[in-house]
Amino acid sequence: MTRSAPSSAFVAGVGMTAFGKHPDRSLIDLGVEAVQDAMADAGVVPRDVQAAYCGSAMAALVQKETGVGQSVLMQLGMGRIPVVNVENACATGATALHLAWRDVAWGIHDVVLAFGVDKAVMPKGTVLEAGIAQVEAQLGDIFPGTFALIANRHMTTYGTTPEQMAQVSVKNHDNGALNPKAQFNKPVTLDEVLASPMIADPLTLFSCCPNSDGAAAAVVCSRASLKARSAEGVEIAASVLASGDYEPLRDMTFWESERHCARSAYAAAGISPREVDLVEVHDAFTISEIVHCETLGFCAAGEGGAFTASGETALTGSIPINPSGGLLARGHPPGASGLAQIYEIVQQLRGTAGERQIRSAETGLAQIMGGNKGNDAQACAIHILRNTVA
Amino acid sequence: MTRSAPSSAFVAGVGMTAFGKHPDRSLIDLGVEAVQDAMADAGVVPRDVQAAYCGSAMAALVQKETGVGQSVLMQLGMGRIPVVNVENACATGATALHLAWRDVAWGIHDVVLAFGVDKAVMPKGTVLEAGIAQVEAQLGDIFPGTFALIANRHMTTYGTTPEQMAQVSVKNHDNGALNPKAQFNKPVTLDEVLASPMIADPLTLFSCCPNSDGAAAAVVCSRASLKARSAEGVEIAASVLASGDYEPLRDMTFWESERHCARSAYAAAGISPREVDLVEVHDAFTISEIVHCETLGFCAAGEGGAFTASGETALTGSIPINPSGGLLARGHPPGASGLAQIYEIVQQLRGTAGERQIRSAETGLAQIMGGNKGNDAQACAIHILRNTVA
Repeated sequence: MTRSAPSSAFVAGVGMTAFGKHPDRSLIDLGVEAVQDAMADAGVVPRDVQAAYCGSAMAALVQKETGVGQSVLMQLGMGRIPVVNVENACATGATALHLAWRDVAWGIHDVVLAFGVDKAVMPKGTVLEAGIAQVEAQLGDIFPGTFALIANRHMTTYGTTPEQMAQVSVKNHDNGALNPKAQFNKPVTLDEVLASPMIADPLTLFSCCPNSDGAAAAVVCSRASLKARSAEGVEIAASVLASGDYEPLRDMTFWESERHCARSAYAAAGISPREVDLVEVHDAFTISEIVHCETLGFCAAGEGGAFTASGETALTGSIPINPSGGLLARGHPPGASGLAQIYEIVQQLRGTAGERQIRSAETGLAQIMGGNKGNDAQACAIHILRNTVA
Repeated sequence: MTRSAPSSAFVAGVGMTAFGKHPDRSLIDLGVEAVQDAMADAGVVPRDVQAAYCGSAMAALVQKETGVGQSVLMQLGMGRIPVVNVENACATGATALHLAWRDVAWGIHDVVLAFGVDKAVMPKGTVLEAGIAQVEAQLGDIFPGTFALIANRHMTTYGTTPEQMAQVSVKNHDNGALNPKAQFNKPVTLDEVLASPMIADPLTLFSCCPNSDGAAAAVVCSRASLKARSAEGVEIAASVLASGDYEPLRDMTFWESERHCARSAYAAAGISPREVDLVEVHDAFTISEIVHCETLGFCAAGEGGAFTASGETALTGSIPINPSGGLLARGHPPGASGLAQIYEIVQQLRGTAGERQIRSAETGLAQIMGGNKGNDAQACAIHILRNTVA
């Protein structure tokens, strides 16, 4: 039997580098900045930290680097503690957070660090080599192709239009323009998204997130640890990680792993989708955000396109999605993205999100997924954070 | 405060492929074999498994493969559960086991799978690219060089001789010759070890472990789960993971991370080194086993060479070390080695180790470490297993 966590765990501090291109900075250097920022934000010092989880999805693949977590912590004089490097494709950063949450929620430790870092910017024309040993990839079944199939199926089944999908990119670039940490700080128009180069029909260049460089971090603390330091934290009301069900004959317009994760996360937090004030989702492609909007219960299945076009998911809408700019505009270093979502939600719940601040933000949800095999994600993670008097 | 685990966890089943060269088999295929074997050995079926940790240290680096854990489990129809891919250099497999142990020992789950797989065999002349982004590696500070420095320091400080170090290789090849899963099944003589090509003085070719292909797995269960299936398990009496203290000015003849891990592990198990009946250590190089023998408390500091030469660590000695053949003869797929150590200890404690069976094996210790930076390991893991009536 899988049991509920006996204790609450809190995000006490967050940090992140600007996302984008950092050709002159090493993976380690980026990680150090995010970790230092998160620790300063949490008010903890190196000796407080009892364990660390470091996510990097592409360090070995692109940078030929292993043991990234230990290399970052060595720079900060943080030895002795258990350190685990994790990889779960695009859900890597969220997986690091999930393990940190578990350490605290199950009473193993009181202060645990989760961080993620990647340098995913590659020279133009470079083919991402992830998974090339497998026949599907050799035959062209790589991410843009997979998500183009999903987009086409969504269009055929539900009448979703290219314009509705493009609106996701317009909205997220609008949000990114208000986020100083975002890779892209410039709005784009619907026409610009639709007219940008076709990558995999119907997904154009501005319908696809970039590969980015960057790092993000969070310090997870127990209630006792917060009290001891008279500090405040944002409660992790749910942390769920699941793999896919790999049912190749299922309807392609949703991911079962996400349905399952969402159900578990809402149950753990004891809330319904109506009680969520803002959302960060895995908009690796525009169609993804539309599917997530439906699966997470913010609109009915098939209505995500119209819901987006209506403005409901904009900063001023009923359920703002990707206020940070999302993967599309904030950028996507896969090891860091899951923690950058947490960074954004914490800023919003604290009321420190500046020009992109949402009114009455009390509960935020972050969803991210990694890999796609057998018609499902290899990993889906959902975190629900909320303002609670600790 | 770091707390003690509230419950016991047991290794209910183990599996491993033969280690060596598997040019015709994929990483996924090797992982599937080890996992299936471990589950059959434990008497569990896919639906029993509640979480999985997959270790691979070189999948991305050498095979351009990510999400290995999910890819293996998809082949076995094992979806939905949380799956985390971990990397901790040579301590990768042990790290997967440590996380599985925690899930069970802290009552999160009852049945958790830990497995590790790597295909590390590379064409002759290939330079392992791990860490080449860092200046130390560019300047030649790669593993054989680092361990040659340690060997020279041990020789200078304690008078350890090349012949004593070579005896580690002779003994481990003798043991490997009795292990059908080992990569090298042929004894070597002291003269052959000393006369084999010099890699980094005083370490010759037969003083260095190979890069191997292979997979290993363990099923970790709670007491309740064993009882429900009327099954037996070997108790995990201690599971400790630590990073280094990175003290570059410290004496090079030991690793502080290992001292710290050993102290914690003996305390957790409530035993002293005298109560250990057999040991598997990380003999990546001959000098390593000598240092581990000292640090783990089987002989005094500086006496590991003479202790080995005296035969005390042979199968028939007072404290058999690396009965499996160790990394030197069993082979070393880094993601799998930590779990292959567990495989060996479980066989020995069950009395099913065949020709290499040790008499009265009730308690076994596995030590492994990964990476080396700032004069310490990036990760050191120690597990103590013992026969306990569950």
